[in-house]
This record gives sequence, structure tokens and C-alpha cells, in this order.
Amino acid sequence: MSMMKAAVFVERNRIELVDKPLPSVGPNDALVRITTTTICGTDVHILRGEYPVAPGLTVGHEPVGVIEKLGSAVQGYSEGQRVIAGAICPNFNSYAAQDGAPSQDGSYLVASGRCGCHGYKATAGWRFGNLIDGTQAEYVLVPDAQANLAPIPDGLSDEQVLMCPDIMSTGFKGAENAGIRIGDTVVVFAQGPIGLCATAGARLLGASTIIGVDGNDHRLGIARKLGADITLNYKQCDVVDEVMKLTGGRGADSSIEALGTQGTFESALRVLKPGGTLSSLGVYSEDLKIPLSAFAAGLGDHRIVTALCPGGKERMRRLMNVLASSRLDLGLLVTHQYRLDDIVAAYELFAHQRDGVLKIAIKP
Amino acid sequence: MSMMKAAVFVERNRIELVDKPLPSVGPNDALVRITTTTICGTDVHILRGEYPVAPGLTVGHEPVGVIEKLGSAVQGYSEGQRVIAGAICPNFNSYAAQDGAPSQDGSYLVASGRCGCHGYKATAGWRFGNLIDGTQAEYVLVPDAQANLAPIPDGLSDEQVLMCPDIMSTGFKGAENAGIRIGDTVVVFAQGPIGLCATAGARLLGASTIIGVDGNDHRLGIARKLGADITLNYKQCDVVDEVMKLTGGRGADSSIEALGTQGTFESALRVLKPGGTLSSLGVYSEDLKIPLSAFAAGLGDHRIVTALCPGGKERMRRLMNVLASSRLDLGLLVTHQYRLDDIVAAYELFAHQRDGVLKIAIKP
Amino acid sequence: MSMMKAAVFVERNRIELVDKPLPSVGPNDALVRITTTTICGTDVHILRGEYPVAPGLTVGHEPVGVIEKLGSAVQGYSEGQRVIAGAICPNFNSYAAQDGAPSQDGSYLVASGRCGCHGYKATAGWRFGNLIDGTQAEYVLVPDAQANLAPIPDGLSDEQVLMCPDIMSTGFKGAENAGIRIGDTVVVFAQGPIGLCATAGARLLGASTIIGVDGNDHRLGIARKLGADITLNYKQCDVVDEVMKLTGGRGADSSIEALGTQGTFESALRVLKPGGTLSSLGVYSEDLKIPLSAFAAGLGDHRIVTALCPGGKERMRRLMNVLASSRLDLGLLVTHQYRLDDIVAAYELFAHQRDGVLKIAIKP
Amino acid sequence: MSMMKAAVFVERNRIELVDKPLPSVGPNDALVRITTTTICGTDVHILRGEYPVAPGLTVGHEPVGVIEKLGSAVQGYSEGQRVIAGAICPNFNSYAAQDGAPSQDGSYLVASGRCGCHGYKATAGWRFGNLIDGTQAEYVLVPDAQANLAPIPDGLSDEQVLMCPDIMSTGFKGAENAGIRIGDTVVVFAQGPIGLCATAGARLLGASTIIGVDGNDHRLGIARKLGADITLNYKQCDVVDEVMKLTGGRGADSSIEALGTQGTFESALRVLKPGGTLSSLGVYSEDLKIPLSAFAAGLGDHRIVTALCPGGKERMRRLMNVLASSRLDLGLLVTHQYRLDDIVAAYELFAHQRDGVLKIAIKP
Repeated sequence: MSMMKAAVFVERNRIELVDKPLPSVGPNDALVRITTTTICGTDVHILRGEYPVAPGLTVGHEPVGVIEKLGSAVQGYSEGQRVIAGAICPNFNSYAAQDGAPSQDGSYLVASGRCGCHGYKATAGWRFGNLIDGTQAEYVLVPDAQANLAPIPDGLSDEQVLMCPDIMSTGFKGAENAGIRIGDTVVVFAQGPIGLCATAGARLLGASTIIGVDGNDHRLGIARKLGADITLNYKQCDVVDEVMKLTGGRGADSSIEALGTQGTFESALRVLKPGGTLSSLGVYSEDLKIPLSAFAAGLGDHRIVTALCPGGKERMRRLMNVLASSRLDLGLLVTHQYRLDDIVAAYELFAHQRDGVLKIAIKP
Repeated sequence: MSMMKAAVFVERNRIELVDKPLPSVGPNDALVRITTTTICGTDVHILRGEYPVAPGLTVGHEPVGVIEKLGSAVQGYSEGQRVIAGAICPNFNSYAAQDGAPSQDGSYLVASGRCGCHGYKATAGWRFGNLIDGTQAEYVLVPDAQANLAPIPDGLSDEQVLMCPDIMSTGFKGAENAGIRIGDTVVVFAQGPIGLCATAGARLLGASTIIGVDGNDHRLGIARKLGADITLNYKQCDVVDEVMKLTGGRGADSSIEALGTQGTFESALRVLKPGGTLSSLGVYSEDLKIPLSAFAAGLGDHRIVTALCPGGKERMRRLMNVLASSRLDLGLLVTHQYRLDDIVAAYELFAHQRDGVLKIAIKP
Repeated sequence: MSMMKAAVFVERNRIELVDKPLPSVGPNDALVRITTTTICGTDVHILRGEYPVAPGLTVGHEPVGVIEKLGSAVQGYSEGQRVIAGAICPNFNSYAAQDGAPSQDGSYLVASGRCGCHGYKATAGWRFGNLIDGTQAEYVLVPDAQANLAPIPDGLSDEQVLMCPDIMSTGFKGAENAGIRIGDTVVVFAQGPIGLCATAGARLLGASTIIGVDGNDHRLGIARKLGADITLNYKQCDVVDEVMKLTGGRGADSSIEALGTQGTFESALRVLKPGGTLSSLGVYSEDLKIPLSAFAAGLGDHRIVTALCPGGKERMRRLMNVLASSRLDLGLLVTHQYRLDDIVAAYELFAHQRDGVLKIAIKP
Repeated sequence: MSMMKAAVFVERNRIELVDKPLPSVGPNDALVRITTTTICGTDVHILRGEYPVAPGLTVGHEPVGVIEKLGSAVQGYSEGQRVIAGAICPNFNSYAAQDGAPSQDGSYLVASGRCGCHGYKATAGWRFGNLIDGTQAEYVLVPDAQANLAPIPDGLSDEQVLMCPDIMSTGFKGAENAGIRIGDTVVVFAQGPIGLCATAGARLLGASTIIGVDGNDHRLGIARKLGADITLNYKQCDVVDEVMKLTGGRGADSSIEALGTQGTFESALRVLKPGGTLSSLGVYSEDLKIPLSAFAAGLGDHRIVTALCPGGKERMRRLMNVLASSRLDLGLLVTHQYRLDDIVAAYELFAHQRDGVLKIAIKP
């Protein structure tokens, strides 16, 4: 039996490289040899035991690689083809997917009960490094490969497409959910990798005034490069007051929350005009409060919309088109490179946000 | 100078009938002689001093009447014509209205600052009995009459159209914001007049399973008459568990909150499927909490949408069409009738919800 | 090798019952034993050679039956379970499905060219009786079974769900595409089975005034039972004039074309208000003309929207929910019953619309 | 009585400068002193007698100027303020505006008949130089001034905002109606001023591949500057074939027609993927044909959407925001400048498209 190296969750604060057998390939699967992957903030939560996964599970959910072996029922691809797959690999045959929420169900469960239906499981479309072995390894098994394998257009490097599976798809979804119209003012709270992609997405979708907020001036500088017209360091001003001044008292048309804290959520609500939309991307770790005053007592025609990263080959195709058309260069988000063998050190750097790290390319 | 009777807010716990001069009619106004009006839950909040209005202001915001006098610039109506106007009388010339949120701005304020814009004021489209004299009087002055006067179709009585200005428009908006699709399961929390109209609206818009929730069996009985397939008395069951059972574990496609409390808001969130929508109608009186578990930590593709009652003559025309087409009979919501002279007693009955009262027709 | 009876297209004007081998079941397929199926207008076009299919192909696309055998990769169903499948059985793994048009691609074709994409084929989601063997047989092989098998809720008969796979799904889509809002006036052109379902769908979605148009008074009578407020026999009045009168000169908010002729298409455009929507369901057989006057020279803010019947298990689940909730009884559309052995006679009756036939239940 | 100079339609092929009395200002009007205006293709149709207007009417519908006098009921503006108004000046109090189609009704007509409604008149929101005196004059009277006057942000010149009232609003609406999503391929047919703005709008809204089509290489060069990734000269290639090649056989996600001919309309349909949208901006002068093959016989899930230029102060505010944020420079469309006194010569140049003219600034 062939073996491969894989970074697995061992126990709280321990992710280690181990040897694992190569997985067997079912009729709807594909085995992909990883050429580049990366570490996500969620992986750090897993490392710290804040998000539970099974001990022994391979972590990571952002695959760039080459098709090694195709399942018997998977058609139209060829072995050796360069591909990516979304961080979220939905089962597009599920009720949830057909109902418009593919990220929310990866399962094959079917009908029971009077209505011939069954429960969706929130976030169940996220499988890599959560429910099944992930991408920080030499190989990864892609489920529902027909739906999830996305060929990389000629001319795009691994580094260029590395943000597509998660960061770019999530950040852009934040901008899409904001319902941006021409002439809008949009405020993006937090300028980490996802917030930066939300800023870039808001620019791409036609917002006229994009206000980037963070406490880190370096990140605010990158925000300006990726599309922010104005940046605010929340340590140096009252962001809500400042937005009201900048909009002549009108408030923002929409705001995007990209951190996952009460403070950013609440400010994202307070900057809105009546009738405005809060697009939330953050992964929250405690109950949220909606202040009455920020919410017009429920009478403000507000919308609060949340999202999980969209996946699927069509989503990936569209994101790679954006890159192929030179609309955007996300290369500047890849600040470091490590070999898979050194992944423990990569986690160390990334978890402590040392050395101006944004994203790390991991190479098996 | 002609005088008229009007119910005014005097001080906390005192609304009284007084004599006031008839208002003068500006070029864009219309003076309407009230033939029927009613008392809303919001009026009770005003009576109790929980919602502040200026002492001496005439209260009430649900007008049915006859055009007495038209402003010089108002065209296409005739004096003597039977009309209603929305509880919310927007200024459709405002930035907010042109931006899709007419209920949020009734003002004539214009441009200042760099962007040539200005602030919307949340709920500022609500003028009757809030910013200007209201409808619990012999006459009411309708501002922006060209936009707000809606002729009553022949054959509809005052009582039949009395719910249009507020209760029906608000309840239906709750159903509209729920984004109902054919085959949906919708849960409506609280079956007071607005919740009952939300139930009726959900039925009208194609929901297949409508679950009405309240603690009052009499109201649940009315809910079944107006469209609920199933009713749950929250005093007798765990509503969230019950909805999960009824949907085979899937959760509701959407929920409508029609009370304005933490309990109903939270349950409305917990009954949702991932990807579901919470349509909120309640007027909240304290900060809201979003429990992490009910919100999938922000990863559930949820939507929370709030609304203020839509107004304007086109909205009123559409609601009266529903009644003229016999799609719905809201007559059963009018449980009592009082003369304007007896309005203090009417408030007494309504505020204490005595005698199975739902809505009271007030006749000057 | 086991054999089964199947109605196949032999040549122009010849559909015959023959013996065929039972198909073998691939990993993503399911073999369904047909208990009831029916004949569609499209089948008559096939019979007459007006729509080309391969000689020897089993015709029919509306399956109601029992699972006989499941493919090895199909999970969550059980053999013996009662199911339906849509007339259109999309491949939900396709680019088209992930792009929001599942009916338009049933293929497994994948990436080629610079953009990593490939052509959708219009209508390629329609496979039964078009690209693969259909349902007028003792057994049918359902492709992509995980996505397409929809369990029948307890308590619904074959006859009750027989309209779901095509007629109801198509007719309702016509109403959905019309963008109906509360208070709308909708005109439905032609009251055959699909037009009748469009009428029922418009009612279910909240239209306040539904005007059914046909030249057959019997069908207009059924239209009134299924939701039309007003019916117009185009042989006895000028439909466009009549709609303008009925709407006070305003025009209809939307119209639904359910026949596929220049006359109905053109009238459906002429009855619209500026800003109105024409929802087209018909299968046209020649070029269409858009008259300049009906189109305000392109300046009328009009929308023309076409549709192919939606499929998939979630769609079927929703339609069956409508029936299970007693919102609608489509039983009255099944006017006749024939054994599969007598299918040639059934075609004869249906093709000539004898004996008031609407739909025929065919029983193997 | 004060007099002013105005360009009026005299008879076919004669527009002349005459003296007219200054209009009197009603309570909801504003008198604006024109500082810059321009000539539109529609004005040429009027000149040639192809579009009928009353003899003696002042032509032109693109005003940039200064408030000279405000009506008594118009609030929040000040005399001397620099403003623009849309080419279409809707009455936002109308049924049409409240129903979502402000461009379609400028009238004050009200209720008659059973439904309490009345007819919209297609294009009736277009008043300047059509129903009332227009902008090619020293002064223009703006109706419904509260809704239509839009202050010019500091720092923007007349020339910079001159495209907002019509060309930019129309072109952008074409892009908005195309329903562009990230990653889309959009084909824009004809690169005159409106098509160029549609190209710029498609870029601003996130299209990844924009294909500009025209027969004039000079205009194609400008198209590339304003956002086209690829340009096709229809005289030198088969556009439909070329688009299919460029999209790997997939077809375009949407197309925008900006000329108003059968050829461009038909090609705009043929380049679409199944499920695609044709956004039509052209003013057609004869009946259109929809070829069966381009329309998948009505089964392609296609959408055809038309538009009339949106107006109103909020629309103008948003468009000027785009310019103030330096998202776009439409200055390069203003190729010539003439004094109002020389307007006959300006028409001569523009009507014959001499000297590479795109748009002419006219200065009283």
C-alpha cells in the first residue's frame, strides 16, 4: 500500500506530519496530488482546540494540484490535469444545493417523514479538514469530483489561484451579499485576507466609495492597493462618526464584517443608513448583541446576511476568470512559502501573525 | 376659524379629546374628513409614555375618510371622493424613496457636503400621530397628497379597508420579506392583528405549510381561519422542537416575528433551516441577543430582515385589490366599534386587551 | 436477460409497444418500475415527426413508480420506495446547474479552452424520451438518481402526483417567472394542462386578478375552478381591449403565454403595462415577431422571460408539498385512464383531443 | 416679460434658435439657467421628423446649470446652486413610480374605474424636449423639482457631469439589466456614446470578459479604453462565431444591444448561453424578429429586458459619485464644443457624425 505525508490534528496545540496510506478512489471521487496549499485562520482554531475535529484527521481545505486518479464515473477530466477545488465541496445532488444553499449540505441523506424531506446540517458542505481528510498532505481525495474539480486556465500559476478555494470566494461572497449598486458607499471591517478580498470584491462590483477599517496600518495600506478609497484605523478615530461625516450624515449603503467580534458586528450595524445591509463573514465565538439604537428598534428596513464560502467548479471557474482577465492580483497576499515538511513552523508563524504574514504557500 | 375634535396626547397615561382648529391646506396637501379610524398597539405605547410624542399632538395613523379639500397643486382627485392613506405617508420625492426605502424619509431636506447627499432619518416616513397631527380626529391633513391619497374601490366598506393603512400592509410586508417560494414552510410568531395578517399574507404568497404560534387559543383559532395549517400554543409545547418534528428535521424555510421580544426573535431564528430567512416585524424595546448556536456561528447563510409598514397610494391600491377580489376577509379583525367621543374608553379596552378585542373601529 | 414492454418511436406517425431488455444499472442510476405515466403534447410532436428523436427510443417523460434497483453509489433510498422524478432530470454536477440553469445541461462534459469551460446545450437536461429511453414502459432507468428521485409522501396517490414531473412544474414556473406581487393582475393565454397549472400557480402566488384566456368554454370553466377570476373566450371578444377595460387602462402586470403561437405571444405583449413581464412557456414552431407598437419601440421597461420545466428532487418535493397541504387538486386534469398495452389508442385520443381529454393516466 | 433664446423644432429638418418668454415658476417647479447641454441621437430623430413633437417645442433633454428660481413648495435647495436633472424627470408621486417604473409615467392622472387605477403611458417620464420645453435654451423649467434637481458635487466640471442625465444613466442601466455576476462574459453591440457607457458600466459591475462590437475601429479603440477586453469589428468577422470561440462554446452570460436594429438584436440573442440575458437599450424603428433557432424554441431560459433611461435626483447623485470617485472619465466622449447661438451647425455636424464626433457640449 502506498503511503503519503499528511499534517494531522493530534491533540490540542499539536498538528504533526505523519505517514498515512493513500486513500482508495470511489466511483465519484478523484485523487489529487497537491502541488500547493495554505493555512487558514480556521486551521489555527482547530490547532488550538477551539473548533473540534477528530484526532488523526488531515487538516487544510485549500487545494491546488494535479489529478492523479479519477473515479470510474467521473467524466471529462484527464489524469495529469491541473485543478483546484473549493474549500467547501458541496454535494450538488443534495436537497440543500437544489434549494440554493449548496454549502450547507454535503451529505447523501434522503427522505424520511411526512414531507419526504430531512434536515440540512449547517456548514456540512465543508468537508476537507473538517469531516474528511484535508489538503495539507501530498494527496487529497476530492468527493463528488464531477461537481468540484475545476481545471486551472493556462497561464495561471499555483500562487495566483491559491486564494480561489476559500479566501477569494468568501471575501467576494461578502461583497455579493452586500447587494452593492453603482454609487454605493461600503464599509469593510477588518482587513485580514478575507476582508481584503471583500474590499477587492466591493471594488469589482461597482461600489463608488469603499472605506476599509482595521487597526493595522500595514494592512490598511494593502487595502488601498486592492480597492479601498479611504481607510480608517479604529485605534485612531471613531469609525462610526467618521463614516457619518464622510457620507454627509447619510450612512453607508452596506457594510461587510470580516472578523467575527461583537465590536466589528456592532459598528457594521451602526454605520448603515436606514434600509442598509450588513453582510457578515466572520466566524463568531460568542453570542452577538444587536443594540436597539443601532437597529431602529426593528423598524429600519435593515438586512443582516451571513455566508459560508461558496464552492463548486462553476464558482471556481468564475473566480479564476477574474484573475485570468487581470482584474485583480491577489499574489501580494502570499507573503511566505514553506515546504510541507516544515508545516509546524508555518503554523507557528501564521498563528502568531509574525513577519507581516498574510498567507503562506505550502509546497509538498 | 372652524374647529374640530381631536384625540391628543396630553401627558403620560392621558390621551384626551380636545377642540383644535382645522388645519390650513398647502399646495400639496389634502384635508380628509375621517369617517373611520382605529387604535394601534403603537398608540398604546404613546399613551403609556413609552414612545415619545409632543404633548398636544393628535394621535392615530390609520385614516379612512372623504376628501374635504384639495391643495392647489394636487390633481386628479375630487372633493367628496372616498379615500384612505397609508399609516406611513412617505415623501416620494426624497432620496430615501428613490433609493428604495420610502418609509425611511418623509422630509424635504436636501444636499449638503461633498457627496451632495444628506442623512435619512429612520422611520421618518411615519408622520401621522408621530411628527404631525394624526387621524383620531374629525379631520386629518394628508401631506404629499398626490402620492398618498388612495381612492377606495366601489363596493368596499370602511370596515373592510380599515386594516389597509397599517396592519395589513405591515403583516403582508413580513410575508413578502420572508421570500416565500412555493412549497415553503413558514412559522409566524405571535397572532395579534399584525401576526394574523402575516399569516394571511404567507398563505396568499404560496407557502405550503404555515405554522402559527401564540399563547392564546382564541387567536390561534383565528389564525387557522386566516391561513395557518398548524397552530402551536407555546405554553403547551416546545415550539422549536415541534417545528423540527413537523419538518422532518429540516427546519422552516422562513419565520416571521410579529411581537418584538427576545423570546420570539430567538425562537424565530432557531426554527430556521440553514439558508433560512427571519422576517422581523416587531417593535423591540430592548437590545436583542443572537445566540451563537442558533446562528451557526455566522456560517449558516441566514438572513435577518426588518421592515417598517410600506405606504403610498400604489401600495394601498394593491391591498384594496386583494380585498376587492375576495381573496381575504379581514372584517373579522374588527371586533368592536366606538364613537370618537368615547375614545378614552376605547383605549381602556384596547390597552388591556379585554373582551377578545383585536381592532376597534372609531367613528367621528 | 429480463425483458420489458416499452412504447417506442418507430417512424413518423408510428409509436408502438415493443419488448426491450431491462437496462443495466450504473453506480449513479436507479431502475424504477413504472406504476403510472402519461402522454404530453410534446410526445404528440414526436409521434408526428415534428420533433426528432432516434427510432427505437422509448418515449414519455413523466414517471410515477417504485424503486426496483439502486446503483451502488446511490444512498438514502430503499428499494420498494414510491418515487417520482422530474420530466427534466438535470445533472446537478454540471456547470449549467451550478450556474443556475439546471434544465439546460444534463451532460458530464468538462473543460476545454482558455476559460476552462464548455458549451451548455439548450434543453439538454431533458433526457427521458429525448436523449435516453423514457417512461412509457414497464421500467425506466433514472440517471443521476441521487439528485432526481423524489419520494412520494404518504397519502398521495399516483394520480395526484402525476402532474408534478412536467405539467405542474412547468405551469408553476410560468407563474414564478411572471414575478407576481400582491395585488397584481395576470393574464394567462391558453388553458390547456400547462396553462391551467399556470393559472393555479398565479393564484397560489398571490395575484389578485387572474384573467384566463382560451377559445374553449369547457377549459375556461376549469380555469375558473383552478383560480381564474375572469375568463375570456378569444373567439368572442378582443382580449387586449377587454384587459385594458378590466384594468382601467393600466394594463396587466404580467402575462403568461402557454401555447406557443405568434398570436398568443403578441397578445401577451400587448396586454402588458409599461414595466410589465411576459412569461413565456410555449414551445414555438416558427420565428416570433415583436411588434414595435407593443414594445414601446424598446423603451417600455418590458421583460420577456422563457422557461424549461424545472426538475430535481427538491422541486418535486416542493410541488408534492403543495398537494399534501391541499392547496390544490390537480386530479380533475386526469380525465382518462388506459393500460400501457393500449397506448396506441391513448395517443389516438390525446392527439385529436377527443372526449374532453386533458391528461391520460397510463398504467403498465 | 423677460425673454430667452431657445432651439425649437419648427418643421421637418428645421430646428432654429428663437426668442421665447421665460416660463413662470409653479410651486413645485424650479427655473434653471443652462450652463451646458448637449445633443442626443433622439434629437436628430426629432429634427428629421422621425419622432413627432409639437412645432415650437424647445428641444434637448440634458441639462447642466444653476438654479435661478425655486417654486414656493420646493425646499432644501438654494438659488445659485449648481445642479443637473435627469433626461427623464419622473413624477415620483405617480402610480408607475411607486410601482417601480418611474420612467414610465410623468403624469398626475389619478384613479378611475373599479380598481381605483389608471393607465401608465410608456415613456411618459420623458418630458424635456418631448412633452414640455427642453434644455437647448438659456433656461429650462424643471418639473417636480424636489424629486429631480441633483446638486453637483464640488470639484466636478460641467463637462464631467454632462453625460449623467442621459448617456451614462442609460448605458449603465443596460449593464444593470444584464444581471452581471463576477466572472461573466458580456458582449456589447454598438459602441456609440450609449454603448460605450454600457461597456464602462459592465466593467464597473464586475464582468470579467467584455467584448465590444462595432464597425468603426476608432470607436472600438475608445471601447478598449473604457473597459472592453476584446473588440470585434463586425465588418471583419462573424461576431457570433467569434464569441462562441472566445467562450469555448459556452456562449456569453449576457449581451447588451445599444443600437436599435434587427441585426444587432438578433446577434445579441445568438451569442447568449442558454439561461442568458439580452439587455436591450436601442430605440427600434420597426418590428423585431426573434429567430426560432436563437431562442431554443422558447425553451432556453432566456430573458430579454428593455429599459428607458432612469432619472431622479438619487440616480444622478449615484452617477456623479462614480465620477467623483474617479472610477471613470467620460470626458473623452465630449469631442466638440459649440455656442448655443451656433446650434444649427452643431446639429449639422452631429447628425452626419463628422469629424469623429461623439458628444458636443453646447454653451448658452
